[in-house]
Amino acid sequence: MRQSVAAFIDFFNGTFATLNGEPDVANFAVGNPQEMPLPGYVDALRRHVEPLDKDWFAYKLSEPASQRTVAATLSARTGLDWDPADIAMTNGGFSAIAVALRTLVEPGDEVVFLSPPWFFYELLILAAGGEPVRVKLDPPAFDLDVDRIAAAIGPKTRAVLVNSPHNPSGRVYTTESLQALADVLTDASERIGHPIWILSDEPYNRIVFDGRVAHSAAELYPHTMVTYSYGKTLLAPGQRIGFLTVPPTLPERAELRDEIFVQQAATGYAWPNALLQHALEDLERLSIDIGALERRRDRMIPALREMGYEATMPEGTFYTMARSPIDDDAAFTALLARHRILVLPGSIVEVPGWFRVSLTASDAMVEAALPRFDAAMAEARR
Amino acid sequence: MRQSVAAFIDFFNGTFATLNGEPDVANFAVGNPQEMPLPGYVDALRRHVEPLDKDWFAYKLSEPASQRTVAATLSARTGLDWDPADIAMTNGGFSAIAVALRTLVEPGDEVVFLSPPWFFYELLILAAGGEPVRVKLDPPAFDLDVDRIAAAIGPKTRAVLVNSPHNPSGRVYTTESLQALADVLTDASERIGHPIWILSDEPYNRIVFDGRVAHSAAELYPHTMVTYSYGKTLLAPGQRIGFLTVPPTLPERAELRDEIFVQQAATGYAWPNALLQHALEDLERLSIDIGALERRRDRMIPALREMGYEATMPEGTFYTMARSPIDDDAAFTALLARHRILVLPGSIVEVPGWFRVSLTASDAMVEAALPRFDAAMAEARR
Repeated sequence: MRQSVAAFIDFFNGTFATLNGEPDVANFAVGNPQEMPLPGYVDALRRHVEPLDKDWFAYKLSEPASQRTVAATLSARTGLDWDPADIAMTNGGFSAIAVALRTLVEPGDEVVFLSPPWFFYELLILAAGGEPVRVKLDPPAFDLDVDRIAAAIGPKTRAVLVNSPHNPSGRVYTTESLQALADVLTDASERIGHPIWILSDEPYNRIVFDGRVAHSAAELYPHTMVTYSYGKTLLAPGQRIGFLTVPPTLPERAELRDEIFVQQAATGYAWPNALLQHALEDLERLSIDIGALERRRDRMIPALREMGYEATMPEGTFYTMARSPIDDDAAFTALLARHRILVLPGSIVEVPGWFRVSLTASDAMVEAALPRFDAAMAEARR
Repeated sequence: MRQSVAAFIDFFNGTFATLNGEPDVANFAVGNPQEMPLPGYVDALRRHVEPLDKDWFAYKLSEPASQRTVAATLSARTGLDWDPADIAMTNGGFSAIAVALRTLVEPGDEVVFLSPPWFFYELLILAAGGEPVRVKLDPPAFDLDVDRIAAAIGPKTRAVLVNSPHNPSGRVYTTESLQALADVLTDASERIGHPIWILSDEPYNRIVFDGRVAHSAAELYPHTMVTYSYGKTLLAPGQRIGFLTVPPTLPERAELRDEIFVQQAATGYAWPNALLQHALEDLERLSIDIGALERRRDRMIPALREMGYEATMPEGTFYTMARSPIDDDAAFTALLARHRILVLPGSIVEVPGWFRVSLTASDAMVEAALPRFDAAMAEARR
């Protein structure tokens, strides 16, 4: 299991630990805030810290009010009539994925995941007793390659883990792509004799640009388990709240609830803190400024391209992938680090020769970084 | 896995769901608050909700300030010079146990646990891939039966899970008992060729009566992994913070840190929320009124005994065990429920014929309950 996160740990104990938080560093490494928290976020916590009854900080599971809030949002987003009883509140999206995998996977089951992946997918599949099966998406488009997914499916396949909007490429997969995947899985499920699930990891589903809407596989395919984190939209990833859910179209959804409950316990009490559940109705309405993120993208990507970088134009998420001007992305991120720019080497997300840039950097960091990116390119070309 | 918690789930979906929160019910079911939160607790959260920097709600792991706070407390408690680097902050004691087991246990390893156990030990051992081996402690004393533990150890034993102060009996095991266990494990480790760990679950170690001190096995036995929850001392179990740690006497403690980190990730991000870590130094100094809890014990146990109940006199924890006047504890807890008293049937903690009473009930609930307990006894004897 450690092997699957070794590159991540090495980077975070090395370059990241050295440069993160240094005042002159332009920090594009991860989806962490580089500006003060949203005032509305602090207001909401301040308000709900005041106890209204003796149970304010008592044991909390998936509180009915939280379930209703989430179900209303999902119903509005998808047009399906979501059942509050199908919402399992979790302490973040990370644990939602862990619980979803533990609920679906029997020992030896295969779980297909798409590469480039989020750092911890493989670890969580292994921890759930599953066999990770990797399907590559090709740069620079990182299209959802449904043919390759189809080819990776076998009799032991239990689930396909899809992340849209996609970290690290910024792609938002279209309804047509998701429908093609749903069709393949419907056929394959019939062929192998058990349903193949889509595990749809959607923490960035409200962080989309150019007027896009991020559709969920759950709108098209009943055997979909959706995982979500509030840590992205609120840019408060150190306060853990998220959920997992299944759509109202799933026939056996009532029978699943008990198993999800047991797996939330087995995962070490995977329910959110009381305070965040009290605040959820307020938090649900809040968001970082997506327009500002989009303007940052529009400042940065053309500028990088002008300098000679090949960079993706994100449709959503915090991230863009850019090609390293030299093959060795670790060497180039070290060169950028000497120029006081912190980015994530592509090797860590299984895209050697590229690097990932997080647009959660401040505008000031972007302006400071652009001439440094230019200088680094010139140095790399020497 | 579900089987190990089936009785618990049935009770909580049944009698508990019906009676919990009813205003006329004297609620002795679980370690939940029956009075408003500690004012100092709310003050601490209120204070630390105000962000002092941009990273206030950013991703948090085991924050150095939290580690220092915990290490100082452990050093003062045990006389050992605890290393902050050995403190892994967790989102509660529940996940601390999950992470500890995942760190220690290889598939097929046996973990000895003591019955009556906390509800979720068996589930967490199974979820970590271990084989639970049950050792019974006999009522009414529930002494730590070192001979039975010794007899349960075999070549595949990896750990013995000990909970002192002990839920549900209220026993606080003496240094002599713990030393006898340490001696047995030292011999057995040598015999079978690998260290047998003590997993010392100590959430009640500051909830002790009659001037007692709860000693930790970690003071005596280097291969001890300690788990702790702040949810008991603060009586705020819906706000998840705890830790796991090993003592400075453990030779290989530095090598363990990386594995614990990976298992915290694999457990679904088992780190506490940012706010609780900011508040920890203040929370560390706070406690519910242990004297009031002790006075409640001293009011209640003699009164129950006077009525003819056989009840343990807790040395610590929130709990006392009382013998049901009829063999069927489920039937007697149903009878108590008709008298508007909510207790936990002993069968759920593997002590059929008994029931568990939580002293977290308010004094008013105790006074209301005593004549009802008397009436229930009279009815049972008819």
